Parts: sequence; C-alpha cells; structure tokens
Amino acid sequence: MNYKMLGRFISMILAIETVSMIPALLISVFLHETASLIGFLVAMAAGGVIAAILYVLTRGAGSDFYAREGMVCVGVSWIVLCLLGCIPFVVSGAIPNFLDALFETVSGFTTTGSTIVPRPSLLPKGILYWRSFSHWLGGMGVLVFLLALIPVSGRNEGYTLHILRAESPGPSVGKLVPKMRQTAKVLYLIYIALTALNILFLLLGGMSLFDAVCTAFGTAGTGGFGTRDSSIADFSAYIQIVCTVFMLLFGVNFSVFYLVLLRRVRSVFKDEELRFYLLTVFGSVGLVVWNLLRHGVYGTVGETIRHAFFQVASIITTTGFSTTDYEALWPSFSKALLLILMVIGACAGSTGGGLKCSRVVMLLKVMKRNIAEVMHPQKIKTVRLSGKPVSEKILANTNAYFATYIFIAVASFTVVSLASPYGLTENLSAVLACFNNVGPGLGEIGPAANFAGIGAVSKGVLIVDMLAGRLEIFPIIVLFSRQAWKRG
Amino acid sequence: MNYKMLGRFISMILAIETVSMIPALLISVFLHETASLIGFLVAMAAGGVIAAILYVLTRGAGSDFYAREGMVCVGVSWIVLCLLGCIPFVVSGAIPNFLDALFETVSGFTTTGSTIVPRPSLLPKGILYWRSFSHWLGGMGVLVFLLALIPVSGRNEGYTLHILRAESPGPSVGKLVPKMRQTAKVLYLIYIALTALNILFLLLGGMSLFDAVCTAFGTAGTGGFGTRDSSIADFSAYIQIVCTVFMLLFGVNFSVFYLVLLRRVRSVFKDEELRFYLLTVFGSVGLVVWNLLRHGVYGTVGETIRHAFFQVASIITTTGFSTTDYEALWPSFSKALLLILMVIGACAGSTGGGLKCSRVVMLLKVMKRNIAEVMHPQKIKTVRLSGKPVSEKILANTNAYFATYIFIAVASFTVVSLASPYGLTENLSAVLACFNNVGPGLGEIGPAANFAGIGAVSKGVLIVDMLAGRLEIFPIIVLFSRQAWKRG
Repeated sequence: MNYKMLGRFISMILAIETVSMIPALLISVFLHETASLIGFLVAMAAGGVIAAILYVLTRGAGSDFYAREGMVCVGVSWIVLCLLGCIPFVVSGAIPNFLDALFETVSGFTTTGSTIVPRPSLLPKGILYWRSFSHWLGGMGVLVFLLALIPVSGRNEGYTLHILRAESPGPSVGKLVPKMRQTAKVLYLIYIALTALNILFLLLGGMSLFDAVCTAFGTAGTGGFGTRDSSIADFSAYIQIVCTVFMLLFGVNFSVFYLVLLRRVRSVFKDEELRFYLLTVFGSVGLVVWNLLRHGVYGTVGETIRHAFFQVASIITTTGFSTTDYEALWPSFSKALLLILMVIGACAGSTGGGLKCSRVVMLLKVMKRNIAEVMHPQKIKTVRLSGKPVSEKILANTNAYFATYIFIAVASFTVVSLASPYGLTENLSAVLACFNNVGPGLGEIGPAANFAGIGAVSKGVLIVDMLAGRLEIFPIIVLFSRQAWKRG
Repeated sequence: MNYKMLGRFISMILAIETVSMIPALLISVFLHETASLIGFLVAMAAGGVIAAILYVLTRGAGSDFYAREGMVCVGVSWIVLCLLGCIPFVVSGAIPNFLDALFETVSGFTTTGSTIVPRPSLLPKGILYWRSFSHWLGGMGVLVFLLALIPVSGRNEGYTLHILRAESPGPSVGKLVPKMRQTAKVLYLIYIALTALNILFLLLGGMSLFDAVCTAFGTAGTGGFGTRDSSIADFSAYIQIVCTVFMLLFGVNFSVFYLVLLRRVRSVFKDEELRFYLLTVFGSVGLVVWNLLRHGVYGTVGETIRHAFFQVASIITTTGFSTTDYEALWPSFSKALLLILMVIGACAGSTGGGLKCSRVVMLLKVMKRNIAEVMHPQKIKTVRLSGKPVSEKILANTNAYFATYIFIAVASFTVVSLASPYGLTENLSAVLACFNNVGPGLGEIGPAANFAGIGAVSKGVLIVDMLAGRLEIFPIIVLFSRQAWKRG
C-alpha cells in the first residue's frame, strides 16, 4: 500500500469538503443560525487543519499506484468524507447523537436518502442545505471531482483510471475521451448543466430558490433528502412531473448524454442498457397503474398515473422521493414490484444505485446462454451487449459481483434482524433500501416514517451497506482484508 | 428431440408408479377404506393402460440421447409422475379439488412437504401412506430408481449419465463406481438401508409401525409430510432426537456413506462440503439457542437445545418437520436464520433441496478470489474444493445457476404477491419454502398452518417452483424452450 499517496488523497478530499461547506456557512450567516454557523466553522477548521498537516506530511509520495491503491483510497476517502461531514450536524445540535449524525451523513453522500430525522422542515436552513448538497457531491463522486479539477501529479494517467474505476458505478468504466481526466471533466460538466436545468424548471413551477436548489441536488444525486416533511407530496403536480422526468434522466448512463451532445443519436438507441431501463420503467408503471386502478386506490386515472410514474422513477433510480404513502395505500403486488426495482437500480455510469441495469441484462444473457448450453453442451456462444461481444472475464466478474451482493444483503439482513425491533418486512426492506442507496423502505420505515428506531447496531450495519452500495462493494470489502494494508 | 425415447421413459415411469401404489392399495383393502381403494384402482388402471400403450407405440426407439434429451425426459417424467400420483387424492375425495391434489402430490414427490390439508390425521390411512411414500420415491429420484433396476437397452451408458445428471441434486455428479448403473444401485441400497434403520429406531421409541414407516419416508426423502396434525410435536423427546439425527444423515452426500462403507473415513473428513454443512448446523444451533434463551422462550436449557437442533436440522435439510410453532414463539433473528438455512439447503448428492452446501462453498470461494483479484488483477488463482482444483466451467455454471435461482425466486415472488391474500413475509417465505423444497413458511403459512388459502394462481406458481427446485431448475426451464422440442 502506498500510504503517502493515500494520505495525499485524504488531504485533498478534506480540502474540497471544507471549501464546499462555504455556501452552507453563508446561509447560516445570512439567516442568523448561530448554532449551525458554529457547526460549520468547527468542521471547516478541523478539515482545514488536518488537510494541511496531511499535505505537508505526504510530500514526495511515490507514484506506485495500482488497482489495490485505487480501491483503498476510494474506501478510506469516503469514510473520511462522511466523518468530517457529520460534524456540523453534531456540533450545531441538529442531530446531537454521533451515530445518528453519521448515519444521516453517510446516507447523504452515498445518495441513499434514508433519514433518522422525523421532521426535516424543522432543521436550520444551513444544515438542510448541507444535507442536500451531500447528495450532489456524492452522486458523481468526490474523487471524480478531484480528478476533474486538480492535476495531482500530472505525469500519471494510471491512478486516474484506478480511482475512476473504483468510484464509478457499473461493471466497466468506458473512456468518453482518450484522457481519463478529460472524461471526468466532461462527466461533471454534464452533471452541472443538467442540475442547473432542473433548478430552472423547478423555479418555473413557483418553487422558492432554496427548495429548488435542494430538491435538484436530491434529484441529481438520486439521493432523496427533501426540504419538507412530506417529501414532494405537498408540491404541485407540475413540480412532481418535473421531478419524475429529471429523476429518470439522472438514472441514465451519462455517456448517453455525451453521445447526444455529439449528435450520435442513432448509437444511443442501440444501447441495450438504456432500452432495458426504459422498458422496465414503462412496464412497471403499466403494472402498477393496472394494480392501483383495480384496487381503486386513487380517485382519477390521471392521479394514479402520476403517482405510479413518480414512485417507479423514484425507486428504480434509487432516489427515494415520494408523493404518496405507498406503504399505507398500495397493494402488496405494487409494493413487491418496488422492492424488485430497488434491486435492479439505475443504469451504470449514472448517479443511481442498485445492481445497475447493465448487470441485470448481462446476468439475464448469461442465464439464457446457460440454458442453451445445458441442452447442447458443445456449442458455446459469445454474449453480446449492444452488439459488442462481452469478454468472459467481465461476465465472470458480473456473476461474482452478483453473488457477493446477495451474500452481503443476506448477512446484513441477519444482523439487522438481531438488532432491530421490527419484523421481517422492515428488516429486509431496510437492508435493500440502504444497500441499493434508495432511501425509504416498507412498513415502519416506509416513506411516511424514518430509521430513528431501528437500533444502534442496525444503524452501524446499514452505514456499511450504504457505503458498500455506493462504491459497488469492493472498495469497502478490501478495507477488511489484510492484503490491502501490506506495504509494497 | 428423441420423442420415442421420451415416450419409452414415460411408459416405464408410469409402470413403476403403478406398481408402487400396491402397498397403499393393500392398506386401503385391509382397513376397508373403500373410497381410497377406488382411488388407487382408478389410478393404477389409468397408469397401467397408458404405460402399456406407450410401450407398444415406442418400440424401436433410436439411441440418440444427449444432454437435451436427458433434461426433457426428466422434466416430463416428473410432471407425468405427479399427474398420475394425484388421481387417488381426487377420486377418493380426500382432496377433491384437482389443483389442490396436484399441489399436494408435487409437494410429496419433490419432497417439499408443503400441505393444503388442514388436518392430515383425518385422511384415510391408505392415502396418508401414499402421501408419505411419494417423499421416499421422489427423494432419491424415480428415474435413478429406474436406471438402477431396469436395463433399458443395455448398450448405452450415455443416457444413464444424462438422466442421472439431470435428476440428481448438486453441481456435478460423481461416479461412485465406474458404471453409472452400478452407481445408481449403490445409492438406492444405501437409501433403503438407512430408511430401514430409521424405522427401527422409531419403533424402539414405541411408535406404531404405520407412523414409523411414514415418518421415516418423510425423513429419508427430506420431505416433511407427517401423520399427525402437529407434525412431530406430540411424539416423545426420544423420537424427536431420532428424527433430528436421521434428518441430518439424509442431508449428507450419499457418497460419504459409500466412503464410510469402504472404510475410507479419512477422506470423509477432508470433504469441505461436509465440513461446511456440519459447521453451519452447529453454528446455527448455537445462535438459535443463545437467541431463544435470551428471550426465555422455553422453560429449560435442554428443551431449548432439543427444539433448536430439531428445527435447524429440519430446515437446513429442507425436511420441514416441526416440534414447535417457531412462527409464533421464536424471535425475528432465529426466524431470519431459518429463512437463510432454507436457501443454503443440504449437501449435493443428498435427498435435500436448497442451493446445496457445495454450491454455497464454491460461491464463497469465487467471491474470495474476486476480492483478491480486485486488488491484484494480474494474479489469477485456482479455486480448490476438498483439495482438488475446480474447473472454471463448473465455477461459471455455479454462478449462472445462482443467478437463475435468484431470478426465478424473484419472479415467483412477484406473481405470488399479485395472487395471494397475504403480506410480504408470507409470500416470500412461501416461495422460498417451495422452491427449496422445505415445506412450511412463516406467518399465515407457518408450521401450524397450511397453504390452502394462498390462491389458485399462487399454487400454480409454487407447483412450478417445487419441481424446479427438486430438479435443479434446468429440466423444468428447458421445457419452456422451443429448442427442446425440435426434432433431431
């Protein structure tokens, strides 16, 4: 392990986070929120001092940087990010309990959106802004941001790739442009432009600037923290539709937007992941609408379609906003569908969580091939995705990822069952909601409730699950491996 | 597809089943159970006539017999087996509804043990015997039985292998002795000997011969149908301990017993699957005992250990007997553990269901390798099981099997959610209990209840799940594939 390089990364992550607290600090100043102001000042002081010390200590870091270093750097950076990020909550007294504050912060940066705050509207505005901004920063990845902005040593293209691989969601990271640093920049520019567009559309619907910015942060990161106690339910139908559209957009692989910008629209439609994603969205909306109408849940067909579309988009993109208490109102079938959408998740290369559509497509294709092989063991077929052959290595990795995913989910479910006061539905949906970075679960932790009562041990497990879900498991798992910490 | 060979197999399966109804017929005669007697006569007449007609029609069947033929033959044979097997239930009026009777029969042959009969003790003895015998016949596999007894064409060793592969549980079928037919014979002899021993031990505990035989059938096939309404709860502690020991024995790979007979005890202890199985059993018992004592569920430590051991053995071997209403009495953590044991299942090459311990071990090893590879992509390690290297092909198949398993479980859960009147806990546990051939689930379909009220569509899905679980998915899936039915 290249410890100096690790220290250097942590130093820079802390610096970025410290700087990114400035808007929240200014809000606290303007609104005379003294407690929050102190909270941010303490956090920024701590972040600044530690960053400076680490920067000095890690001068002359070697350039040995391999896949292992990439994984460990990403894993550790995210933990540090969350530890510093929870200081304003604790110091301001908004969430005095450290574990609860850490849960909320991890939920924010990992774009989960599970909350332990019963009434978010009562939080100071500065804190509320910071809570939503954590979604935005965590969505695209803070290390990707770092790579996009700061030329760390200039010479080395290798570590950029390893970092981007470890932090970006999806089975394989493609370069949009030849240089990885340029790719990171392009990704962030698209991200910023789409977020700005989202804010604009929300403002046009009469939302206040503060609400619009926070809601757009929650949408862009596919996070789900809102500014109201009832999530998006109190806003107008127009706002809800804007949110639906943008949630779906942020669930799309960002390389699709890049292709659109290059006017290569035809190759966009060849993208099998995108087709699967849209098919799943529209198919699920159809089934949910049919199921809701049959049970007469809402008064009109229009209202039914609006809620169904919003909720399906919110869950498959793993955002977690809600316009309706589906836990209380929807029949079991629709709830089961939502649970499955949580696991499928958004597209690779988006800000969404879950298994990712491309992995699900690959798993389905391998299954299909396996069935054919069972009958004709001699014929071996190549699996193709969007027309291109997928290497056996990537297929094997996808399968191993899936197995690891299931094992972690099962293990977490076991421990949460031991520690939580709730039943099977709550415990299972808590693990799925956190591990897939969705947000609300079912039952006592449904959209109208929160995670405050699930128990300290459960919160600890769910914190690990959220991080493992956001970073696609391995950067967190390797931290528990002795090999990761060996020198050289 | 070699249709003549398929017809020939079906003819022989029907003949075996017709003959195997004789004991149940005799019981009905001796106990003057006229309705059951008529039921068995009708079934045997139908079975005999169709078997004879098919036998005549399929003379001169070609010897083209490949993996595909093996899969299709096994799939179709099992469906035919269940269709004929449910006639006595319907005709005798014991279970007048056809779908319910089919559910009960499929549950019997697949050694699931899920029942729609609220009070089994009220069934006529002949029917009760047939119900338990179906576990015994389905446990080792009726086609394996066929291969062991009847020299179908003598010349061809190939189809024996394909059949045995398709019907036997586990990722790979090992030959105990050079000839497959001899292997089938050895397996059945061990099976018969262990069953006889089980009956003997039950008789020593003062059980009636009828109860002892039926209980041993349910244990040997890891089925779970009993003769009493309260499963094994009303029997003495001695009987419960005998059941525990024999359930665990029937969950072991039968090749282990063969090695013991050959006095190669040392290689037995090298078997990693066996070690994992025993570790999981004792580990789970320890955790459940600790959890039950903490909640003070039972009066004494001895009683706690007895129930915990019985229930863990019953669920991991996918038998499904019960001595206690764990649904009502046990805390969530212990119930969650049982749910996980359902999925793990028994050893490959046993009569138990589930994923099988060897698959779980392989998946864990592939995961471990994957984590190491993530850090050091250059080093590629061979996965070893019991010291022997496992081919990448088998690893890939195991992964694909796991993915297929999860997909089928999720799809079934979705449809059952639509059709059943119950909640998430019931629907999920119903799918897991049937797909893993366990028997009882949780909640309204727990050990003190039954599957009668889960709805017709759900029963249909669960029937497919039970068959897919028993035959390890592919022989059932290929039946839905067009390729399977192509000539040549």
